[in-house]
This record gives sequence, C-alpha cells and structure tokens, in this order.
Amino acid sequence: MDLNGVSLIAGVPSSGGKRTFTSIAAATGAILPPLYYCAEPEDVDRAAAKAAEVFPVFSRLPAMRRAELLRSVAVNLSRQAAAIVERANAETALSSARLHGELSRTCNQLLIFAHLLEEGSWVQARIDTADPMRKPTPKPDIRSLLRPIGPVVILGAGNFPLAFSLAGGDTASALAAGCPVIFKAHPAHPGTSELVAQILYQSITEVGLPPGIFSLLYDDSHSVARAAIQHPAIRGVAFTGSCEAGLAVAQLAADRLEPIPVFAQMAAPNPVFILPGALQHRSMQIVEAIAQSITLSVGQYCTKPSIVFLPEGPDAETLASGLARIIAAVPAAPMTSPTVAEQYRRHVSRRLSALGVGRLTGEWKDLPDAPSWVFPAVLRTDAEHFLHQYQLHDEIFGPATLLVTYRDDPQVVQLAESIGGQLAVGIFGTPEDFSRHIDLMGILEQRAGRLVFNGTPTRVELCNAMAHGGPFPATNVDRFSAVGSTAIYRFVRPVTFQDASQAQLPDELKDENPLGILRVLNGAITGAAVHSR
Amino acid sequence: MDLNGVSLIAGVPSSGGKRTFTSIAAATGAILPPLYYCAEPEDVDRAAAKAAEVFPVFSRLPAMRRAELLRSVAVNLSRQAAAIVERANAETALSSARLHGELSRTCNQLLIFAHLLEEGSWVQARIDTADPMRKPTPKPDIRSLLRPIGPVVILGAGNFPLAFSLAGGDTASALAAGCPVIFKAHPAHPGTSELVAQILYQSITEVGLPPGIFSLLYDDSHSVARAAIQHPAIRGVAFTGSCEAGLAVAQLAADRLEPIPVFAQMAAPNPVFILPGALQHRSMQIVEAIAQSITLSVGQYCTKPSIVFLPEGPDAETLASGLARIIAAVPAAPMTSPTVAEQYRRHVSRRLSALGVGRLTGEWKDLPDAPSWVFPAVLRTDAEHFLHQYQLHDEIFGPATLLVTYRDDPQVVQLAESIGGQLAVGIFGTPEDFSRHIDLMGILEQRAGRLVFNGTPTRVELCNAMAHGGPFPATNVDRFSAVGSTAIYRFVRPVTFQDASQAQLPDELKDENPLGILRVLNGAITGAAVHSR
Repeated sequence: MDLNGVSLIAGVPSSGGKRTFTSIAAATGAILPPLYYCAEPEDVDRAAAKAAEVFPVFSRLPAMRRAELLRSVAVNLSRQAAAIVERANAETALSSARLHGELSRTCNQLLIFAHLLEEGSWVQARIDTADPMRKPTPKPDIRSLLRPIGPVVILGAGNFPLAFSLAGGDTASALAAGCPVIFKAHPAHPGTSELVAQILYQSITEVGLPPGIFSLLYDDSHSVARAAIQHPAIRGVAFTGSCEAGLAVAQLAADRLEPIPVFAQMAAPNPVFILPGALQHRSMQIVEAIAQSITLSVGQYCTKPSIVFLPEGPDAETLASGLARIIAAVPAAPMTSPTVAEQYRRHVSRRLSALGVGRLTGEWKDLPDAPSWVFPAVLRTDAEHFLHQYQLHDEIFGPATLLVTYRDDPQVVQLAESIGGQLAVGIFGTPEDFSRHIDLMGILEQRAGRLVFNGTPTRVELCNAMAHGGPFPATNVDRFSAVGSTAIYRFVRPVTFQDASQAQLPDELKDENPLGILRVLNGAITGAAVHSR
Repeated sequence: MDLNGVSLIAGVPSSGGKRTFTSIAAATGAILPPLYYCAEPEDVDRAAAKAAEVFPVFSRLPAMRRAELLRSVAVNLSRQAAAIVERANAETALSSARLHGELSRTCNQLLIFAHLLEEGSWVQARIDTADPMRKPTPKPDIRSLLRPIGPVVILGAGNFPLAFSLAGGDTASALAAGCPVIFKAHPAHPGTSELVAQILYQSITEVGLPPGIFSLLYDDSHSVARAAIQHPAIRGVAFTGSCEAGLAVAQLAADRLEPIPVFAQMAAPNPVFILPGALQHRSMQIVEAIAQSITLSVGQYCTKPSIVFLPEGPDAETLASGLARIIAAVPAAPMTSPTVAEQYRRHVSRRLSALGVGRLTGEWKDLPDAPSWVFPAVLRTDAEHFLHQYQLHDEIFGPATLLVTYRDDPQVVQLAESIGGQLAVGIFGTPEDFSRHIDLMGILEQRAGRLVFNGTPTRVELCNAMAHGGPFPATNVDRFSAVGSTAIYRFVRPVTFQDASQAQLPDELKDENPLGILRVLNGAITGAAVHSR
C-alpha cells in the first residue's frame, strides 16, 4: 500500500495544496515520509457537494447495503492489520499489542453496527393506526422512524489512531445511520489514516456504493475543519478531544445560519472514590488497579482517572506509598506526539505549583532526547486544598494522578459535589460503605455517564448498554454515547408520516412489516404486521 | 377558587414584589383582577433551591408515584373544567369549545405519561452480562437506563393556555421523567395558570409528594426567565414560542458556566404543497381543508400553514378565488393578546410591501375597538417573487396564508429546496403525483419533522408515533418531540452501571426484573429475568 500524502475527495486524490506538514515518529522525532498536503477550500467544497449529492440515494438504500459495507471494511482492515499497525506504531509510538487490540476493537465496532442494521429494529418504528370513527375528529394514521440527518463532519482523535479515527466508531455509526462522512484526519497519524482510507474505498468499490459517501481531508491547522463545519451542506459534527477545542467546534456550529448539532466528547478527570471499608480491606487490589489504569497506553485514555479520593489515615499512607513505589518503577515512555507530551508536563507542573500539592514519585530526569517521552507521576494533596483550587479539578492527559485525602463522610460528599460532569467515575466500596453513602451515590449519578463499582473507569466495553458520555464538560450534550451500538442515535432524527399510503412509506413502516423488525404498534412492542380494521 | 396574583414557590405564596402587571381580556381589552406581582430574584433562588433539594428524593421514588400524581392532576383538572375554561376564555378569547377540547387534550397528555410510567419500559433498560472468562480481558457487567437530568425551567406558551402551559405536555413529561419543574407563566393568561397551579398542588398534596417539585413564577418581562435559566441548579429548559425568543433562551443556556440543553419549539410556516393531479381532481376538498386550517382558533397554531404552493393555471385560479371567497366571509375575531394581533398585522403588511405580492381578500375595516381583533387574509405571489424575497418564507402567526404559484416540476423542487426546517409539511397529491415527485418527497423529508399526506399540518395527534419537532428553525434541536409520549426523552440521559451489585442497581436493572419491563438483554428485547451463568 503506497502513501501519497493528499486528501481523498469521494475517492479521488486531491491535486495537493499550498501548505504541507509531515508525520513525525513519536518515539524518535524522525520525519516519516511522505509529505502531507493540507486540503484547500475547493477540496472542502467538493467533498461537501459530493456528500450532499449522494445523500438522498445513500440514505434510501436498504439498510442491508450499509451493513454489507461495514462488514467488508472489517474484513479488509483485518487483512491489512500488519501494515496498519506498523505505520500506526511508527507514528504514535503506541505498542503493537495495543494497536492490534485497537484494530480488533475497530472491526468489532463496524460489526456491531452491521448487526444493528441487519436486525433492523434500531430505527424505533412507531405506528399508531387510524380510527376514522373517532369523535369529535377522526384519528389519522401516524407512523414514525429514525432517519439520517445528512452529511456529517468527523474530526479524528489523537489518542486512538484507529478506533476513534478514520474507520472508527464515529465513522462507522454515521455511515450505519446513512450519513455521508467528511473525515478530517488528526495530524499526528496521517499515514495511518491514509492506509485505512484506502481500505474503506476498496470496500466501497467492492460493495458498489457511491464513493461520495466518504472524503478524507488533511490539515495541521484549524482552517479545514472550520470550513467543513461551516459548509451549508453539513448537518452534524462528531469530535473527540480537548474541552477547549470541543467548545470551539460547538461555537462554530451554533454560529451558522442554520445551526447544526455537535457531539463533542471532551475532557474528564474521571475520579476514583475510595470508601473507608474498601481502603481497609482491599488496599492492595486497589493500588494495582489504579497503577494499571494510570499507565496503560501512557495514560492516554479519555477515561484515565486524574484524581483519586481516599480517606485520610494510616491506610491512606500505605496506599499512597505503595502506589508511588509501583509508579516510580515505571520507565519513561513516548506519548503519541510532542504536543501532548508537552501539555502533560505543563499540566503536572501546574498542579505542583498549586498550594499544598506534593509529588510522591521522584523528579523527572534522564529522559530520552525525543520530546514525546514522559515519566509517570503520583501527586498528592488534601480535600481543603483541592476544594479551594479549581485548577486541581481538571483532567491530566497522560500517566499521572492526584491523590486527595478526605477527613470524613461529609467531606467526601462535598468533594463529589465540587466535581464537574464526568465520562465515568470509579467507586471502591464494601456493601457497608455503599449503604452508608447513599447520598454520595446519588450525587455521583448526577455527575457521570458511567458508575464503575470496585473498578477503575479506564476500559470502555463495546456493547449495547454502554453510555460513554456524561454531563458537561465531559461532553457538550449529555444524552448520547460515543461508544457502543447507541452511538448511532447521534446521527438520526425522527420523521413522522401521517396518512401516507403504503407506497409512500419506507419499508420499516409498511403494514406487512417486510423487514420483520420490532415496532411499537398502538403502544405495544411487536414484530406483527398491521391488520387493517 | 380564589386568585391571589402571586408566584407560588414550592406551593408557598410569594410575598409579592415591586413590579406588577394585569391580565387583559383579549376580546374586550378590559382588565381582569387580580393584580399580578412579578417574581423577585429571591423567588427564583428559592424555587431553584427547593427543586434541587427534592430532586434526589423525587427522582428515586418508584415511577408509580409519579404516575399517581399525573393521574390525580388529570382527574382534578377535569373536575374544575368549568372554572378553568371560564377564566381561560376571558383571558385569551379562545372559544369555550376549543378550550374544553384543549383541557381534555391536557388530561390525555397527563394520562399518556402516567401509562408510560406504569408500563415502565420507556427507560430503555439495557443489560450486557459479564463474562469473567473472556480473553484477553474479562467482560464486565454493564447495565444502563435513562435517568432524569435534574430541575428544569419551562416557559409557558401564549397560544395554548392549557396544553402547552402550566400542566401541559412539557410539565407532564418533565415530572414524569422525575425532573422538578420551575414554570414561568405566560403573561397573557396568568389567572388560568394560577387556577391550574392550585389543582397541581392539590394533587401533589393528595399523593403525598414534596411541593418543591413545582414552582410557578410570574413576570411580564424577560428578567425572571433569564434568572431561572442562568441558575446553577437548573439542568434544562423547554420553550414554545417565537424563533427570536427561542434563540435568546438557547444563547442564555449556552453562555452558562455549565451549558444546559434547551428544547425550543419555534416558528415554522408549515407549507402545503399541492401537486398537479390533486389540484385537478380534488380542488374543492383542498380549499376546504386549507380554509379550516388557516382560521381554526384564529390561526394561532404552530402548525398553521403560512404558505401554499400550487401549480399555475386555470385550476389554481379557481382554487385561489374559491379560498378567497370562503376567507373573505369569515368575520373578524380576537387573537389571544393585543401583542400577537399587532404582530399579525405587521406580518401581513410586511408581505404586502414585498414585490409581486397581492391580497385576494378585501381591505380590513370595521374592526371592533379592542386591539386583539383581526381579519383573516389570503395573499398571493408566484415562485419567482417567493424565491427572491426571503421575508416571504417566514411564518405568519395568525389567520393568513400566502399562495405561491409554480410553473413546473423543476420549480416546485426549487421551492422545496428554498424552505427552512418545518414542524410539518402537507402534500396533496394523487398516486401518480407522488410517483412523479420522488425527488421532491426526499427533499421534504429532510426539511420536516412530519409529512402529512393529503391533509394540512394543523392537527397534532397525541400518540406514540408523533414527532412534533423538525430541523432548524422549526426547533433548535431536531431530534426531540414536544408532543406525544416520546416528549419525555427530552428530560433524561443514559446512566451506565458497571459491575454493580444487585443492591446498587435501580429496580429497572435488577436481575429478577421486578418491574416486569421489556429490556435489551445481551442484544435481544425481552421481559425475562437475568439468570446468572
């Protein structure tokens, strides 16, 4: 597979542009060929025009055709796993094992949506049949289902070169919904994106779909993303990244003549709460779970815990020194880019310059020359200092966490009330802890998309019940998941058909239920056909 | 039932305030006692504090308790129908027949949500069971359901003193979800709101719920609504009204330190498209449907068609003159307030001052002295003038519509492409018309929340399949319905429980399925219990 370094508009290579950037090997700082050309305004226009042109056709194809595409991409991705992982490893310095895992997750995501389409009930078909005899007015026939919103822009994430990038969950769920995708690649792994795009187009060709359903744009500044989000043909945006960038994207979308929805998964410190009983009885197990959670993939998970709350006392001292010992023994490792490494160091320094914050692990020295390398760190403070210094409440993206000791039950409730919206929260507790902390659990439920019992938030299982979202600032819209089968609901809206003839109805709403899906028929969930009265 | 003219904070009368306003009889302009006192900033704070205080308890009560409340309100409203309709009629000049119908609709809305809670499956419980043996990592137990977002602010609508006001669909669905409500009454019918609030509190007392779940605030300016929306305890807002006001509300919510969702149902002209075959064969039936649709409740429906597209030619002339004849014979009638009547007259004049727009009905004269009275009107232009003058694309709130003749098939497609997002669109066509206009139907589906076949958009059926929403500017968020059982989904968000013990899980997610609801269990919809492996 050759790399050409140009944007791909509906499968056609762009002629290149004025600005270029290079792909950097995160581990060594070396330049990886080829040179990447940033997309030009004309590329954005062409991609949006193609997407708008194919939308009416693509969105009305039988869902099975879209399922076929997703299955084909999964197969073709697996076939090229070695080449993709090799390039992703060179670009991001994430380990081959992690990247093989991420590729397999990416394939599973594609298959989950294929399965959802094949089963078909996800469209939430609702039918309320007519009653021409009703008084005082006849009851009309009302039927509704979820339909795709239109062409969408997806901004690739830096920390997941595969699962939250080109053919990742956002693209998979948007294409599954019937929305053409304009994908802006993250500049930290342009080559990986190009390889995956080639595979995606191969599948589009194999399955016989119009190439206009997908375009890949390169840029290492904000201008291409801005132009794409502002393009009138675009109907929605998905984003994964920092809070600052997420809010900027949301503002751009809100400032359009016709505002469009943005689904931004942003930053969260995902705190872990250790309750007294658990600390007393399961300290060792908790230390190991937290140490792993902090250092996994050099702390580059959106669900890494940046804060750990624990009750003060001798057990807390044991846990703190045990954790510090494990973390101090972890060698330096490269993050996915010099930018995130630099930001990580700044975040840790910023905390160390706050009042009452200390470092439990040693000073950072003997770092390799390449600027992406970082050491993990364990910091520490107490509840009073935490409550009064808001800069301690943010996420630290990278392998560090802040231990915060609390005095008593009222204080842990106060801490819970002080935190913002979270993707996930971990709570270590015994049954007695939980029954004593009903208030705390109520507050945490209001703060988080996911409550993890006796575990850390880090692994996000791919399934139907996953809500990977949460109140602001974890996301900008608290009711959609970026992971699992429900992620498709970001890209659809309900459409009602009133008194339509059978010929005017989509298959999902026809009397005979030709797709055999489950529907809400006059209030009851059923796979039955509609019988005329 | 006595009226006191003060805000009710968690059931307790406010001590009154510095600013006052009066309720005006729309038909006569007479002042209706009592004097109404605007809420003070302390009232807003107290209402929000009470709502936040009761939320953890209210939201965790068994759903049956909330169903009981809704049923009780419906019963008590019906009992006081005469008094409520009398006051609403005096305040809004809407007919008693219409108001009795609206009251019965309001009760049906309450009952729909009571039924939804009793049945219980609406929470979308999803369970993916654990697999400790899975390689490379054990599969956790993941369960999710929809939980209420927290206290919400609801801004009452002017055109529906009951069904979209104090105990209307927004309040009913928010309380059903488990969200305490702070309701800002519309100043055009404060007395009606006060009567309904008394009934709501009577039911809250009867059912034994905390009065903090509801507060009523009065104001005839924007300051109380602004303070309520900006209050940190508030987690969401529902609004029905103009686009300008809806966008201002959305901006206030977005500018908060923690932005919150706003569900604004705004303005839409809800155009009707008449296709050639239908015009030829069903002209009389169409004229009657449109005439009724324009004049029903003096044109004060959010789904009234403000634009009618029809193919030019002799049949169009017949329809236009037939419609003009019917409408010219309709007597003047009072709108719900002098403000909306004034706005209506301005909207009609603004269209008449556009190029190429004429009036088919006579001049307005002999209006009663009271400033709320208006005449209906039929205006007319052609596609060229419509396409080039954007001021013709807006809603006319009141009993008027603009006929727009088009030349041919390509031009009707161009017209469809030119319109913004709509709550609903009506399409009159024969089977032949529809098969010739597949492109048009595709465009209209992208523009509207509801497609009405061979009917006008005006009546919004209360049912499960209703999507009363639509793309911007019909609403600010295209994926939620303000009418029907799915309106509850505005006030909830998913929460995931990972590896929780049975004691930590809400009833809806417990293994044995104690509520007997339908759940998605490992991908399949079932009412079955979870059996441990």
